[in-house]
Amino acid sequence: MARHPLDEMPPEESERLQGIYEPFTQVVRDLVDATIRTTVDEAEVLKVQAELEDIVARLRERELDGSFAVSNRGRHWGNTVVGIRNAAAPPVHVERDSSGRAWADFHLGAAYEGPPGLVHGGVSALILDQLLGEATGAGGKPGMTASLTLTYRRATPLGDLRVEAWIERSEGIKTWAKGHISNADGITVEAEGLFILPRWAREAPQPPEGSFE
Amino acid sequence: MARHPLDEMPPEESERLQGIYEPFTQVVRDLVDATIRTTVDEAEVLKVQAELEDIVARLRERELDGSFAVSNRGRHWGNTVVGIRNAAAPPVHVERDSSGRAWADFHLGAAYEGPPGLVHGGVSALILDQLLGEATGAGGKPGMTASLTLTYRRATPLGDLRVEAWIERSEGIKTWAKGHISNADGITVEAEGLFILPRWAREAPQPPEGSFE
Repeated sequence: MARHPLDEMPPEESERLQGIYEPFTQVVRDLVDATIRTTVDEAEVLKVQAELEDIVARLRERELDGSFAVSNRGRHWGNTVVGIRNAAAPPVHVERDSSGRAWADFHLGAAYEGPPGLVHGGVSALILDQLLGEATGAGGKPGMTASLTLTYRRATPLGDLRVEAWIERSEGIKTWAKGHISNADGITVEAEGLFILPRWAREAPQPPEGSFE
Repeated sequence: MARHPLDEMPPEESERLQGIYEPFTQVVRDLVDATIRTTVDEAEVLKVQAELEDIVARLRERELDGSFAVSNRGRHWGNTVVGIRNAAAPPVHVERDSSGRAWADFHLGAAYEGPPGLVHGGVSALILDQLLGEATGAGGKPGMTASLTLTYRRATPLGDLRVEAWIERSEGIKTWAKGHISNADGITVEAEGLFILPRWAREAPQPPEGSFE
């Protein structure tokens, strides 16, 4: 498989691009929050809408044909949980170690609400799926999610949260991982998942690195 | 519990507000997509960033203290799956019937990517959690998610998708629901969940209506 120009990008260039796109995306993230919570008058809402239509048109003058990772060889910048270019992502900044552990401190605001004032149960599932996948990748046992079970111990309030995940055991192409989300009062949601290395990855000339999500 | 002014809002007024905030939020959703996919030059990115900072400041001149549903008695407009004021939501427009079924046709673009070109497995979990909850609510058996199990049959490509959910059985405060996501080629992800009516809702003078998410 031919190497892609982005694979060859020197780390300094990658950091430089991150310095541009990370604050740019953060403003869009702030806008998502402000769109939910604003109570300015309707005339101002309509005015802002027109300005945003103009901005979107300008950004779309040149754009990728499809999603981000397809054009960027799996680069995670568009990922819906960790993507620094994805304003729908919190984003969660994941730390990992090679023993097969991954963890993150993160914050969820109004954009992640389910019941009033609470994190949507499915958002907890989304973040745990990502972290369990990151743990398997960190431990050299990457796979795609085959099954995932969530147990909701109590409601998760919006705000500051922590997620932790680890490899439980591994047999050949199958890896079982566990994890949980907690806040200052303790664990709120637990997860258990089975991750399997897909056939196309097993047959690739070089094993894939990192996680699949 | 005192009734809130929003409960008294005539349907015409609710529709009028929807006519303002739905297209406004849709532009922000388009912006999230364009932010991921744009390849315009860096000078333009910086210029847009400054314009967006100004817009966010204007919208924040008057805003809710916290998340949307807290100030709006559980109204779903801020919900992270179905919320018409939440640009992080696809949004999924759910249909339901009182036999305890819920379904929706929806589209997922670049903002929902996990592996290249594929829906993040956790996004499927998020949408299924919402739909299973909607099915239990539609059938008069509302509850909060106690547990949820996802089985990934095959990868879910970004694009046009369908989700369906239904009540499987119910015993007192416990309701079991199932569902799946599919595309034109068939089912990709299956879900099974247990929903429990929380104590505070059982002790309320009137049973809650609809779903909890």
